[in-house]
Amino acid sequence: MRRRRQDTGAARAPRPVPQLSHPFSPQAIFSDDAVADLHATALEVLETLGIRVLLPEARELLAARGARISDGDMVQIGADMVNEALRTAPRQFTLRAANPLRDREIAPGRLIFAAGGGCPNVTDRVRGRRPGDLAAFRDALRLQQHFDVIHTLAPAPEPQDIAPNLRHFAMTQAQLELSDKPLVVYARGRGQVEQCFEMVQLAHGLDFDRFAAAPRCATVINTNSPRLLDAPMAQGLIDFARAGQMVIVTPFCLAGAMAPVTVAGALALQHAEALAAITLSQMAAPGAPVMYGGFGSNVDMRSGAPAFGTPEHIQMCIGSGQLARHIGLPWRSGMGTAANTNDMQAAGETHMSLWGNLMAQATLVIHAAGWLEGGLTLGFEKFINDVEALEIIAHLCTPPEASAEAMGFDAIAGVPPGGHFFDSALTLARYREAFRSPINAEMANFGTWQEAGGATAEERATALWQTIIAEFRPPPGCDARADRIIDYVARMEAVGGAPILD
Amino acid sequence: MRRRRQDTGAARAPRPVPQLSHPFSPQAIFSDDAVADLHATALEVLETLGIRVLLPEARELLAARGARISDGDMVQIGADMVNEALRTAPRQFTLRAANPLRDREIAPGRLIFAAGGGCPNVTDRVRGRRPGDLAAFRDALRLQQHFDVIHTLAPAPEPQDIAPNLRHFAMTQAQLELSDKPLVVYARGRGQVEQCFEMVQLAHGLDFDRFAAAPRCATVINTNSPRLLDAPMAQGLIDFARAGQMVIVTPFCLAGAMAPVTVAGALALQHAEALAAITLSQMAAPGAPVMYGGFGSNVDMRSGAPAFGTPEHIQMCIGSGQLARHIGLPWRSGMGTAANTNDMQAAGETHMSLWGNLMAQATLVIHAAGWLEGGLTLGFEKFINDVEALEIIAHLCTPPEASAEAMGFDAIAGVPPGGHFFDSALTLARYREAFRSPINAEMANFGTWQEAGGATAEERATALWQTIIAEFRPPPGCDARADRIIDYVARMEAVGGAPILD
Repeated sequence: MRRRRQDTGAARAPRPVPQLSHPFSPQAIFSDDAVADLHATALEVLETLGIRVLLPEARELLAARGARISDGDMVQIGADMVNEALRTAPRQFTLRAANPLRDREIAPGRLIFAAGGGCPNVTDRVRGRRPGDLAAFRDALRLQQHFDVIHTLAPAPEPQDIAPNLRHFAMTQAQLELSDKPLVVYARGRGQVEQCFEMVQLAHGLDFDRFAAAPRCATVINTNSPRLLDAPMAQGLIDFARAGQMVIVTPFCLAGAMAPVTVAGALALQHAEALAAITLSQMAAPGAPVMYGGFGSNVDMRSGAPAFGTPEHIQMCIGSGQLARHIGLPWRSGMGTAANTNDMQAAGETHMSLWGNLMAQATLVIHAAGWLEGGLTLGFEKFINDVEALEIIAHLCTPPEASAEAMGFDAIAGVPPGGHFFDSALTLARYREAFRSPINAEMANFGTWQEAGGATAEERATALWQTIIAEFRPPPGCDARADRIIDYVARMEAVGGAPILD
Repeated sequence: MRRRRQDTGAARAPRPVPQLSHPFSPQAIFSDDAVADLHATALEVLETLGIRVLLPEARELLAARGARISDGDMVQIGADMVNEALRTAPRQFTLRAANPLRDREIAPGRLIFAAGGGCPNVTDRVRGRRPGDLAAFRDALRLQQHFDVIHTLAPAPEPQDIAPNLRHFAMTQAQLELSDKPLVVYARGRGQVEQCFEMVQLAHGLDFDRFAAAPRCATVINTNSPRLLDAPMAQGLIDFARAGQMVIVTPFCLAGAMAPVTVAGALALQHAEALAAITLSQMAAPGAPVMYGGFGSNVDMRSGAPAFGTPEHIQMCIGSGQLARHIGLPWRSGMGTAANTNDMQAAGETHMSLWGNLMAQATLVIHAAGWLEGGLTLGFEKFINDVEALEIIAHLCTPPEASAEAMGFDAIAGVPPGGHFFDSALTLARYREAFRSPINAEMANFGTWQEAGGATAEERATALWQTIIAEFRPPPGCDARADRIIDYVARMEAVGGAPILD
């Protein structure tokens, strides 16, 4: 197969990575009145039905601010508490990266991509489908670091070969060693979170106050729909808020399974759960950086499995965007596919959900590259093909030039009827930068393509990720940051790390 | 492989096929001022540079209305003539189908899909890639007829086994025999066009005046960019206009090849050519049904081949929509992919261009199913997978319910924290219709899917198109319509049909 002219970016000099803003206006599936009704329904759910909160500390925190506790761990949260939280939750803030050129402003209208996260498995065309391990986790980080269109790091595949009590060391260490992008930390219990925060402070030479002044780490807090907030999630909300780190609140409301079968009903539940979690975060630390989130879809009624890229997924996404705008917060959404392999279904559902995110004007689009099997597997070839799509969208964020020269009267005048523009002065002056160059798509005609081996997009992607990983060099500063945590990690590992909180 | 529960629609009773309207607001890549400038640039191109028109009859028609002829066949068209044409071109009209339930209103804001057209080749996983023949053309019509989301017929693959002077009989006959949707007729010279119109009149029992009163046939008129209108195209514009049949004017402006390298410049050229063709149509018959069209993209600068689904393709699409709205006409656009096989590139580019069409609010989206290789091949598996996407979009045209019941407070109240909604009353009442059922996508988890054979979306699509074609029955009325043209076709074939006009 012909070698792509892809710049694999080995040892690239740092350069600004422009922040993307959405190119399209946000769309609506509900009237403004219906959105207000959905918000009111969610408030009524919290006030009258309540949410089960398994962590005593969280219940006490909410009760101290006026929530009513019943049946042991049911917490009824009044609209006044929610409104107070929405007053203090910041509309915008900056998620810091080791490389300041990669800082991302988190604010409505911005467009930020993160790769697939949370996958227990990994697959590629060379080694097949297998449980995630640290080597694959590190390779996935190399791919994430390589492409500028991946803006913040995501945790996948799960390094299952590392003991759970030590895994957070390996995951944080890998990110510090290989990337200069904003970090991801799992909220799997206070002990692990505090050790991860400690590592980031050491790596960056920050005391706690300076660390807490601006988020460098993000975590996703999934509620356990319906209406349940478990202990590690509640603890994570509190700990991240108090350390000034970014919490992404994401109920995962599957219509017809863990949420009402209607799009509106699933959104009402999602909204209630998200508001409860945002309220807890703001009660723990007013002004803490928090994102609203929704990653709702439907279940397939045949298999009971989550579906993605469906009309209902897109509608839930757009409806989530309306709710996020209603409360004025930046918000995260997600892409995905239920496909089990790199086929047209995988690409189709992924693109459908990508565009749903654009219609919904999601601030942070998670699972934007590499997801397969509804997130159970991270695919390296899928990653490459998804990045192709993300780069196309990134390109669309800059409108085309509309100068008199660009409108081309002189160029048109210079080419006779039936002629061509290949050697027009306008073409010669601009052709190098005129069009985005694909990373993996092949435009050659059938005969040329077939003679060159007839490789599919999946097959070509293998060569590309292999080259990127083979030529990968960590960006400047990584070595120094990684060195600063070696002793700490050794010391903490020696005393057994920290357990996962159940 | 497990048999899909797809209703293959054999001998279905006629039922209304709702007309789609765009679910999203039209987007912009240029300011209103820039759009006005583009329009002015196009008018200046027509007025000062002109367009080469190879058909004397067309030149005379334009000259009689004030156009200036120079250098033999160069025609300079003034803004006043263009404005006059834009005054008489209808803003909306109805494209009639044999089955009135399939009539389509052609008007801005409507959304109409047509399958891939113009492909010389055909491919499927059973018989491989080969030149198009009549059997494949007829099978493609069966697929087009089967899916309601395909609204009007498209000509592909080309039945190359039929002599060019007789091919129009076979193509029109096949449409009348197999479908009750609006028809497509190639403008390949007056003789062929008149014979096709005669067949349609006979089949429907219409005299010419009643036939000409409402369009039942559509044709695509491609200008030969840059600035050239060849004889069959010019003749087609005149003949279709005078017979009241629908002309879809579509310059095919590839930025950097047959058009300026800039998006704005390629659009200016496209707009000039489209306005010239629309003007000719309206000078031939004021009020004739005509659509503005654009199918611009960029060339791949590595191979020189047309690219699709690129940022520039999407931008040209959105810009075309702005220009169409500027002149107030319904308009056609196109989807496509340059991929040579059913891979993630094929699905990715197709989805990108589909969504570009949605952002552009194209009235008629051509090449919406089955296109491969930039239109050189119609793929049956690709057709199935593309229809999956179109059906998802069609589903999005209906917003979700926003009633109090749908918002789900009662359903949420009825399920305890951590429970599920599988047997909620709301779910039981609605689950059958709650979600769109995919035709080819597979949601089962990896293990189940693998045990069932691990078929890819491409492989599953083979079984589906085979079943549809095997079980296909023409809709009511086809037999009668087909019978009415048998004698005519035999008579005309006996005298040699009609030649293709070069």
